Amino acid sequence: MDAGDIRALLHAVANGETDVDTAFLMLKQQPFAELGYAKPDLHRSLRQGAAEVIYGAGKSAEQIVGIANALLEGGQKTVLVTRVDAEKARIIAEKLSFLYHEPGHIGRIGAEPEISAPGSIVVATGGTSDLPVAEEAAFTAETLGCRVVRLYDVGVSGLHRLLAHLGVIQSARVIIAIAGMEGALASVIGGLADCPVIAVPTSVGYGASFSGLSALLSMLNSCASGVSVVNIDNGFGAAYQASMIAHISQK
Amino acid sequence: MDAGDIRALLHAVANGETDVDTAFLMLKQQPFAELGYAKPDLHRSLRQGAAEVIYGAGKSAEQIVGIANALLEGGQKTVLVTRVDAEKARIIAEKLSFLYHEPGHIGRIGAEPEISAPGSIVVATGGTSDLPVAEEAAFTAETLGCRVVRLYDVGVSGLHRLLAHLGVIQSARVIIAIAGMEGALASVIGGLADCPVIAVPTSVGYGASFSGLSALLSMLNSCASGVSVVNIDNGFGAAYQASMIAHISQK
Amino acid sequence: MDAGDIRALLHAVANGETDVDTAFLMLKQQPFAELGYAKPDLHRSLRQGAAEVIYGAGKSAEQIVGIANALLEGGQKTVLVTRVDAEKARIIAEKLSFLYHEPGHIGRIGAEPEISAPGSIVVATGGTSDLPVAEEAAFTAETLGCRVVRLYDVGVSGLHRLLAHLGVIQSARVIIAIAGMEGALASVIGGLADCPVIAVPTSVGYGASFSGLSALLSMLNSCASGVSVVNIDNGFGAAYQASMIAHISQK
Amino acid sequence: MDAGDIRALLHAVANGETDVDTAFLMLKQQPFAELGYAKPDLHRSLRQGAAEVIYGAGKSAEQIVGIANALLEGGQKTVLVTRVDAEKARIIAEKLSFLYHEPGHIGRIGAEPEISAPGSIVVATGGTSDLPVAEEAAFTAETLGCRVVRLYDVGVSGLHRLLAHLGVIQSARVIIAIAGMEGALASVIGGLADCPVIAVPTSVGYGASFSGLSALLSMLNSCASGVSVVNIDNGFGAAYQASMIAHISQK
Amino acid sequence: MDAGDIRALLHAVANGETDVDTAFLMLKQQPFAELGYAKPDLHRSLRQGAAEVIYGAGKSAEQIVGIANALLEGGQKTVLVTRVDAEKARIIAEKLSFLYHEPGHIGRIGAEPEISAPGSIVVATGGTSDLPVAEEAAFTAETLGCRVVRLYDVGVSGLHRLLAHLGVIQSARVIIAIAGMEGALASVIGGLADCPVIAVPTSVGYGASFSGLSALLSMLNSCASGVSVVNIDNGFGAAYQASMIAHISQK
Amino acid sequence: MDAGDIRALLHAVANGETDVDTAFLMLKQQPFAELGYAKPDLHRSLRQGAAEVIYGAGKSAEQIVGIANALLEGGQKTVLVTRVDAEKARIIAEKLSFLYHEPGHIGRIGAEPEISAPGSIVVATGGTSDLPVAEEAAFTAETLGCRVVRLYDVGVSGLHRLLAHLGVIQSARVIIAIAGMEGALASVIGGLADCPVIAVPTSVGYGASFSGLSALLSMLNSCASGVSVVNIDNGFGAAYQASMIAHISQK
Amino acid sequence: MDAGDIRALLHAVANGETDVDTAFLMLKQQPFAELGYAKPDLHRSLRQGAAEVIYGAGKSAEQIVGIANALLEGGQKTVLVTRVDAEKARIIAEKLSFLYHEPGHIGRIGAEPEISAPGSIVVATGGTSDLPVAEEAAFTAETLGCRVVRLYDVGVSGLHRLLAHLGVIQSARVIIAIAGMEGALASVIGGLADCPVIAVPTSVGYGASFSGLSALLSMLNSCASGVSVVNIDNGFGAAYQASMIAHISQK
Amino acid sequence: MDAGDIRALLHAVANGETDVDTAFLMLKQQPFAELGYAKPDLHRSLRQGAAEVIYGAGKSAEQIVGIANALLEGGQKTVLVTRVDAEKARIIAEKLSFLYHEPGHIGRIGAEPEISAPGSIVVATGGTSDLPVAEEAAFTAETLGCRVVRLYDVGVSGLHRLLAHLGVIQSARVIIAIAGMEGALASVIGGLADCPVIAVPTSVGYGASFSGLSALLSMLNSCASGVSVVNIDNGFGAAYQASMIAHISQK
Repeated sequence: MDAGDIRALLHAVANGETDVDTAFLMLKQQPFAELGYAKPDLHRSLRQGAAEVIYGAGKSAEQIVGIANALLEGGQKTVLVTRVDAEKARIIAEKLSFLYHEPGHIGRIGAEPEISAPGSIVVATGGTSDLPVAEEAAFTAETLGCRVVRLYDVGVSGLHRLLAHLGVIQSARVIIAIAGMEGALASVIGGLADCPVIAVPTSVGYGASFSGLSALLSMLNSCASGVSVVNIDNGFGAAYQASMIAHISQK
Repeated sequence: MDAGDIRALLHAVANGETDVDTAFLMLKQQPFAELGYAKPDLHRSLRQGAAEVIYGAGKSAEQIVGIANALLEGGQKTVLVTRVDAEKARIIAEKLSFLYHEPGHIGRIGAEPEISAPGSIVVATGGTSDLPVAEEAAFTAETLGCRVVRLYDVGVSGLHRLLAHLGVIQSARVIIAIAGMEGALASVIGGLADCPVIAVPTSVGYGASFSGLSALLSMLNSCASGVSVVNIDNGFGAAYQASMIAHISQK
Repeated sequence: MDAGDIRALLHAVANGETDVDTAFLMLKQQPFAELGYAKPDLHRSLRQGAAEVIYGAGKSAEQIVGIANALLEGGQKTVLVTRVDAEKARIIAEKLSFLYHEPGHIGRIGAEPEISAPGSIVVATGGTSDLPVAEEAAFTAETLGCRVVRLYDVGVSGLHRLLAHLGVIQSARVIIAIAGMEGALASVIGGLADCPVIAVPTSVGYGASFSGLSALLSMLNSCASGVSVVNIDNGFGAAYQASMIAHISQK
Repeated sequence: MDAGDIRALLHAVANGETDVDTAFLMLKQQPFAELGYAKPDLHRSLRQGAAEVIYGAGKSAEQIVGIANALLEGGQKTVLVTRVDAEKARIIAEKLSFLYHEPGHIGRIGAEPEISAPGSIVVATGGTSDLPVAEEAAFTAETLGCRVVRLYDVGVSGLHRLLAHLGVIQSARVIIAIAGMEGALASVIGGLADCPVIAVPTSVGYGASFSGLSALLSMLNSCASGVSVVNIDNGFGAAYQASMIAHISQK
Repeated sequence: MDAGDIRALLHAVANGETDVDTAFLMLKQQPFAELGYAKPDLHRSLRQGAAEVIYGAGKSAEQIVGIANALLEGGQKTVLVTRVDAEKARIIAEKLSFLYHEPGHIGRIGAEPEISAPGSIVVATGGTSDLPVAEEAAFTAETLGCRVVRLYDVGVSGLHRLLAHLGVIQSARVIIAIAGMEGALASVIGGLADCPVIAVPTSVGYGASFSGLSALLSMLNSCASGVSVVNIDNGFGAAYQASMIAHISQK
Repeated sequence: MDAGDIRALLHAVANGETDVDTAFLMLKQQPFAELGYAKPDLHRSLRQGAAEVIYGAGKSAEQIVGIANALLEGGQKTVLVTRVDAEKARIIAEKLSFLYHEPGHIGRIGAEPEISAPGSIVVATGGTSDLPVAEEAAFTAETLGCRVVRLYDVGVSGLHRLLAHLGVIQSARVIIAIAGMEGALASVIGGLADCPVIAVPTSVGYGASFSGLSALLSMLNSCASGVSVVNIDNGFGAAYQASMIAHISQK
Repeated sequence: MDAGDIRALLHAVANGETDVDTAFLMLKQQPFAELGYAKPDLHRSLRQGAAEVIYGAGKSAEQIVGIANALLEGGQKTVLVTRVDAEKARIIAEKLSFLYHEPGHIGRIGAEPEISAPGSIVVATGGTSDLPVAEEAAFTAETLGCRVVRLYDVGVSGLHRLLAHLGVIQSARVIIAIAGMEGALASVIGGLADCPVIAVPTSVGYGASFSGLSALLSMLNSCASGVSVVNIDNGFGAAYQASMIAHISQK
Repeated sequence: MDAGDIRALLHAVANGETDVDTAFLMLKQQPFAELGYAKPDLHRSLRQGAAEVIYGAGKSAEQIVGIANALLEGGQKTVLVTRVDAEKARIIAEKLSFLYHEPGHIGRIGAEPEISAPGSIVVATGGTSDLPVAEEAAFTAETLGCRVVRLYDVGVSGLHRLLAHLGVIQSARVIIAIAGMEGALASVIGGLADCPVIAVPTSVGYGASFSGLSALLSMLNSCASGVSVVNIDNGFGAAYQASMIAHISQK
C-alpha cells in the first residue's frame, strides 16, 4: 500500500465512499497467510516482481504442501520449491501436480512458465561436481521465465574449453559462474564478459577448501569488475537475481 | 577478435587482400600497453562495455599518471581512479586535469560523463560512518553514466527512517545497500525492493565485527532473495556492476 | 551460608547452644548430593532464585533419573530437563512422571508451575526452521512461571509480517529474538521494542552461515541498543535470563 | 503512530475535522531530523524508553555537536555521547555544556540525570586493564538514572577477592561482568548471583586472546544460566540493557 | 595450436591449399571430448607433459568409465583414477581392465607405465595413519614413470628413526613429506635434504589439528628453505609435481 | 648412544677389542622395530623415562597386536593402548592379556604397574560429560605408576562444590583440570592450587564452543599463573606430563 | 584459612578466648590490599608457593609503583614486574630499587633471589628473533630461584645445532621450548628429552603464521608426549610453571 | 658426516692413523659458528646445495653484519640477505660490500653469482602491487645462479595479457606465480604450463582478502595439477625451491 493508495483511501473516507472501520482494516490488513508454523507471503509478486518461493530444507513434505496450497489459493500461479530430496518430492507429488527436477533437488507446482525475459542467462560451472548447484540455478531461472544456456566443466585448468565458448559468454545477458575449489572461474569469466556476472561458490573440494570458504573468498576478491557473489551452493539465489536483471528492460 | 573477425580475416587472406604476415600479426596483436610496471588494457570498453579503471592503492602518483596517459592515448575518454588519498590527488592534478572527490577518495580524468542509463541507482547506508564507501560507489556510478539517489543513515535500528523513503526504494532500478556492524540493511531492503540489490559490507564497527566479517557473513546469508554481495568496503565494485545492470535495457 | 548465618552460628557456639564439632560441620557442609558421576546442586533455588536444571545431552536416561531423584528428594518441586530426545524421554517417563514437549526436545518432572511473573515474554523467530529452539525457550519460560506469546516466522525479508504484530512487540516485558542465517531479526526488533531483547542465534542456514556463526556475529554487532546474546541454539539460556528479568519487579 | 492514532485520524477525516492532505502528511511524517550526514531519531525516548545516544567513533566533533543540537531542539533533555577522545571532547565543550568522563571516553550534554531505578547495578571487572570499558558502562548507567556499585579487579585467579564481596553480588539488581583474557568472571559470578548477569568481553590480553575473541567465546559458553553477552568492549550496550532491566519494575 | 601452426595454416589458406571454412574450423576446434557431464581434455599430455587424470570423488563409476573411454579413444595410453572406493573400483573393473590399489584408493586403466625418470622419489610419512595419502602419492608417481622409495612412520618424536635413513633422504631426487598433527616432519626433512621437498599435510589428528589445518600452517611456515606445500591429503598433487621435477632433466 | 658410549666404542676399536665393521654397525643400529606399517621405538623408556605407548585411533586391532608384540619382545613390561573402542578391545583381548577400561577407551597389556611416584595427581572435571577424557587421564596416570584422586563435576557455576574439596586441591602434587564449554575451571583451580596445573579442554559443548576451541582459548589465556594446556580431549597427554612431574623428585 | 584454622578459632570462641565479633571479622577478613584500581594479593606466596607478580602491560608506572609498595609493605621480599618498556622502567627506578632486564622487558624490585631449586631449567629457542620471549622466561625463572641454561637458535632446519647439545637437553629438569613460525622445536625436543617440556609459541613469523597461531596449533598437536603449551609469547607463564616443577622435590 | 665418513674414520682409528680423542672430536664437531645471539650454519652449501641465507627481519644491522662475517670467514662466497629495509641496508653497506636491490628489500654480499642452471625461471605477477614479492623472488633466483624472465601484471581479469606471452610460459623450466586478491593466476598458469609452478600468495588486497588468506586458500585448492604453494609474500622461498629444481639436471 503506497502513498497513492493511502491518499485514495483517505479521499474515499473523506467523501463517505468508505467508512472509517473499513479503512482502518485496509490499512492494517496483512498480505500473508497464517499457518501457525509459517506465514507465507501472498503479495510478494506485487511487491518484488516474483512470487513467493518455498525453501524446502527443514520443512516436512506436509508443511510444503500446506504452504503451497495457501499460495495457490492466494492466487499465485507457479510455486517453486527448492532443496527437496526425492522422497519428499514423491510425497508432494501425491498431493499436488509437482514437476520434480532431481539433478537440482528442486521442483515446481502449477502452471508452466513462459519465457518472459529477452536474451539468455548462461550457467557455467568449473567441474562436473558443481552440477547440482548449476541445475538448481538453471531450473530456477527457467521457472522465472528465462532462457538458460548450460556451459558445464569449463574450469580454468583447461582454459581452451572455456575459450571455445567465448561467443556464448560474450552474448549472454547475465552469467552465473559456479565453481568450488579455488573459484577462479568467476574472475576469468568476469574478465571476458561484458554483462553482470553472479558468482556462486560451491562446497565442492576437500582439505583447505573448507567446505566452500576458499571459493567464496576467491570470488569476493575477484580482480574482475562486475562480479558479485551469493552464498555457498546458493544456485537459487543467483538465478533469482539473474532473472531480476534479465527482466529489467521490460519495466 | 571474435569468430566473425577471424573468418573475415581469413577471407581477406584467401583472396589476397591481406598477406600472411599481417594476418598473423593481427591474430597475435594484444590490445594492451606495456609500461613495464603495468599493462593497461586498451580495449576493455569494447570487450566489457566500460573503460579501464585505475585502482590507486599501492601505486605511486607517477604510476597512476603513466597509466592514465597510456589509456588516454589509447583513445579512452574518461579515466576513473579509485583509492587515492588527498596527497596523491594533488600530484596527479599537477599533471592532468583531475576531478577529485575527497569523500570517496576517488577521482576522474578527462571528459565529463553523460547520463546514459535510464532510471536511477539508489545508494543507501546504515550509518554516517559508511559514507566514504557510499561516496566511492556514488561517484563511480555517476562517472559510468548513471543517475544516483543518496539515502544515508537509514539503518534498521530506526526502521521508520527507512520506511519513510519506501517510495525511493520501490522505484529504484538497482539498489546498493551499504552497512557495517550487523549488515541487516541488505536483508531489509532486499525484502522491500523489487529490483536487484547489491550489498556492500563495510569495515565499520569494532570487536566482533572483525573488520567487516560480521556484515559480510550477514549479507551472504540474507534471507531475502535478489541480494548479491561484493567485497568489504568495495563501493566501486558494487557501482560497476550496478551500472552494468542499469544499462542493460539499452542493449 | 551468609554473614548473618555465620554470626548467628558463632553466637550459638559462644553461648554453648551449639558445640564446636557441629558448628564446624555446618560451616563445611555442602548443599549438593554426591552421585559419583554428578554433584547436583540442592540449594540453587535459594541461591539463584530458580531451581537446578538437568542438561540432558551427554547423559544417559538412567543418569537423568538419578539426578532428578536426588533433586526431588532434596525438596525441589519441579525439575526441568533439556536436550532430551524422544527415546530417552520414553525411558525417563517409565520411572518418573515426565511431561515431554517434543518440539523443544525438553520436558519437566514434578509439579505444574504457576504463573509467577507479571506481563509476558514474547518468543519471536525469523523462520519456521527456528521452531525447535523457540519451543525450548517457550517451554523453559513457562516452566519457570512466565506467560509466553509465540510469534513465529516474522523474518525481516517480509517486514510487514513483523510490523503487523507491532502491538505485541511493544507491550512485551522481555523479548527473545531467535533467528539463523543473517540474524537481522534481533536488530529490527531491538529498534522497535522498549524492553530488553535477548537474541538467540540458531544453526539454521547453510554455506557461509557456518552453523550459526553468521547469526551470532550479526547479533553481537547489533546497531540497536538493549540487545544481548546467548550461545547458538541456546533457547533455554535465553528463557532462563528472560524469566529472571520478568520476575524482577516481584523482589 | 499506532492503531489508535490511525483510527482517530481517520475519524477526524471522516467528520471533516482534518482535511485529506493534512492527514496524508501526518501519516507520512517521520520523527527524525534530516542533517544530510545523519538522521537523528527524535522520538526514541517515546518508542524505546531511553533517549537517542550519539556513538562518537567515526564522527567529527562538528557532526556530534550538530546531532546533539538537533536532539536538544527536538526536546531531548540529556544527550549521551560515547567513544569520544579528549581532543574531540574539548571541541564539543567549546560549543555545548559537556560533562566529559575521561576514564570511560564518554560524556553527556544537558541536564543532570536523577536516580530513577530502584536497587543498584554492580559493575565488576576481572582486572585493572578492563577499567575503561567498566567506566563506559558505569557512566552510561548513571546517565540513564541508575545507582552503580563498582567492583574492580576481582578476577578468578584470586577468588577470595570476589568472595569477600559476596554480599554486594547477592544484593545486586543486575550485574555487568567485564573481563578479558579467559573471561571466566562471568561464569563464576553467574553461579553466585540470583539476578541477570550481562557479560562484556574485553580486548584486554595478548596472543591467543585474539583481541577479545577468547573472552567472548568463553562468556557465550558459560556453564552458568542467566548470563547473556554483548559485543567486545561494549560497556555502553551492557549498561543500556542493564538500565532497561533495572527500570522494569517501574512500568 | 601455437604461433607456428597458425602461420602454417594461414599460408595454406593463402595459397589455396586449405579453404576458408576448413581453416576457420581448425582454429576453433577444441582438443576435448564433449560428454555433456564432462569435457575431458584430449591433448593434455602434449600441453602439460602428463596425460589427463580422472578425479573420482563425486563421479559415478559410469561417468568414470565414460571419461576413461573417451581418453583411451583419444589416444591416451594410461589413465589414472584417484579417490575411488572399493565398490566403484569393482564396477569399473567390470568394464575396463583396471588395476586398483586399495591402500591409496587409486587405480589405473591401460598400459603398465615404464620408468622414465632418473633417480627416485622418497615418500616419507610421520605416522602409520598417513599411509592412505602416502600410497596415493606413491602409486601416482609410479604411474607417471618414477621410482619410489617408501619411508613410513619416521615422525619427529623419535628422531633416530629418521636419522637412521639419512642416506635415503640425502640421495633422493625429490622428497614428498607427509604428516598430520603438527606437521614438523617437513621442516626437519627440509633441513636435512638437498633436493626439493613437497609437503603434504594430512587430516590425521584430533582436537586442535582442525582436520589438517595445524599441519598445513606448520608446513607453510617451515623454517627450512626448499619446502613447498599442497592441499591437505593431496598425495596425488604432490606426486604429480614431484614427477614433473623428476623428469626435468630429460627435457 | 651418547658421547661416553661413542668414546668407549672408539677405544675398543683402537685397542682391537672391537673390529671396525661391528663398531660401524653399532653406531648405525637403530633402537626400533621395523614392521613395515610402523617402526615402534624399543628404547623409549631409556630415553624418555616412560615406555612406548600405542595410539590406537586409525590402527587396526591386528596392527595394535603386532606393535604390542614387538614392544613386549623388545623387553617392555607394560604397554598402554589409547583410543581403542570396545570392538577392537575384544579382538586384542583374544590375542593378548588386555585390561580394557571402557570409560576411558583405553587399556593396557602386560604387568600391573606399581605406584612409583610420591603424592597424588588430582583429576578434576567441570561436568559429567567430561568423564571419558578424565578416565583416559586417570588410567594413564595409574599405568605410569601414580596415585590418582578423581574430583568430578566441580564446574565453576556451583563454586561451593569445588570449595568443598579445597583440601584435596591444596595437597595435590599435580592437578589435571578438565573442562569443556567455557573452560573456566582451569583458571579457578590455578588460583587456588600451589602445584602445577595441566589444563585439558574438552569438545563438550555446542554452538560457539566450536568443538573445544572456546575452552582451549580460555585455558591458554588463563589469568592464573602455573597453568599449561594440552590438545583438546588429550587426557593421555596431560597424564603423561603429570606423571613426569610427579616422578621428578625421584631422580 | 583452612579447616584446622576454623576449628581452632571456634574452640577459642567456645572457651571465651575470642569473642564473637572478632571471630566473625577473622572469618571475613581478606588477604588483599584495596588500592581502588587494583586489589593486590598479599598471601599468594602462602597459597601458591610463589609471591604476587605485577603484569605491567596496561598499567601506568605510577600504578606499578603503588602495587609494588603494597606488596612490599605486605611482607613480600621480591616483586617481579613483567611487560615493562624502558620508559616505564626508568620512572619505576626513580621511586624504587628496580633491576631492569631490557632484553626481556622485565625487572624485579627488592631482594636478590637465591637458588632454591635443584638442577636447571633449559630455555631453548628456534631462532634469534625469539630472544625477547626467552629472556622473559629466563629472568622469571632466575627470580623464582632456578638455575637457567640458555640454548638459543637451535631451530629444526639445522638439526645438528640441536643435536650438538643433546647432553644439555637430556640432563635438564624442565625444558622451556620457544619457537615461532612452524613451532616444530617443541616436538623434536619433546622426543629427545625425558623431562617435562613447556612449549611457548611466539608471534615471530609472517603471512600464514598468523601472529603465532601456526606455532600454537603445532605445539598443541605435538606428536611427542610430555609437552604442554602456554599462550603465545608467554615466557613468564612457562617459567612460572617450570619453577613450580623444578621446586617440586623440595616439598 | 655420512656412513662412508664414519667407516673411514673408524678404519683410521683402528690402524692408528687417528687417535681416539681426535676421532671423538670429529664425530662431535658442529659445522656452525656460535655468536651467542645466533648459530650460523657453515656447511649448508655442502648439505643442501645452497649456502646459508640471512633472514633480515627482526635482526639489527649489526647482527646481520656479524652473521655475514662468520659465513664469509667460514668460506661462503656469496651471502644473500632478505627483508632488509633501506636504512639497515645503508648501515650494512658501510661495513661490507653490499649490493642492495631496493624493489625486493633484498641484497647480497660477496661475489657476483654466475649462471649455473640451464633454462630460465619465469616470475609472473597478477598485478603491479605484487612487485616487491616478485623482485625478492627474482633477485634470489639470480643470486642462486638462475636466469629470470619477469612477466608482470598478467592477472586473469585481462586474460589476453597472459595469453600474449604463452610462448614464455610454455618454454619455462619453472614458473613462480605470484598473486594477491583471489590468486587465480596460479591455476590458470598451472593449466597452461608443462613445468612445475610454485605459487606465492601475496598480502595485496583488502577486506575479505584477509591479508593474503584468500589467495593462499585459492592456490592450495588449485584445480590445476603441478602447483605447489609457499607462505604468503614468501618470494624468497619460492625462488629457493625453484632454483633447486632448475639445477636438478646438473646433478
